Amino acid sequence: MHKSRLGSLVIDCRADDLTDSAGFWAAALGYPPHPDQPDPTYVALTAPDRELRLLLQRVDHDSRVHLDIETDDIAAETARLEGLGARRIGAVKSWVVMEAPSGHRFCVVPPQRPDFAENATEWS
Amino acid sequence: MHKSRLGSLVIDCRADDLTDSAGFWAAALGYPPHPDQPDPTYVALTAPDRELRLLLQRVDHDSRVHLDIETDDIAAETARLEGLGARRIGAVKSWVVMEAPSGHRFCVVPPQRPDFAENATEWS
Repeated sequence: MHKSRLGSLVIDCRADDLTDSAGFWAAALGYPPHPDQPDPTYVALTAPDRELRLLLQRVDHDSRVHLDIETDDIAAETARLEGLGARRIGAVKSWVVMEAPSGHRFCVVPPQRPDFAENATEWS
Repeated sequence: MHKSRLGSLVIDCRADDLTDSAGFWAAALGYPPHPDQPDPTYVALTAPDRELRLLLQRVDHDSRVHLDIETDDIAAETARLEGLGARRIGAVKSWVVMEAPSGHRFCVVPPQRPDFAENATEWS
């Protein structure tokens, strides 16, 4: 048995630098950028703990929004989603990139939110 | 003074019918479709009350994901977002479609989530 849940919302920005995009989205949503940003490819916004995690990602493809599904077992969750019709596209670090039958790309990632253990869905 | 917050996540699907896409996303996220679906252009998923509202929308443009900002004053919120650099694109029913400086389209909509009044951000 493993668990999963919608974990993050990622605002993919085709831009050399995320500063302007992060400034807009932080002000628009009322979630200031996290003070600790170790990787210039990402800017994490400080959504409240009860909310979905929000981050911006610098990308080379067209700008878009994608979802991350958080899970405590990436192999089992990827297999479950393949069983539902999703296609495995590749891997980035510890994440698996998939494509839904609806054509939307999304990622399968380790747990992101502090209440994952209590509120994620358990699959048997 | 008015309030706003990230209210919904909309999975826009270029499809004649949302049944297959809704079936996949409902099973992937563990949020069954809402039993009451009055408009075939939309399928609402039953995310828990504490979570972002999730829905699928049938569209003519390319499939994508977009955000809805919920607010108790659409005119004031639209003006605030224009002040941050967003551009007003048009209106659909009571919603205003906008484009962020990062190029992402999003909508400004009436309150969607049951805890809007207590947890949305107040702007002065």
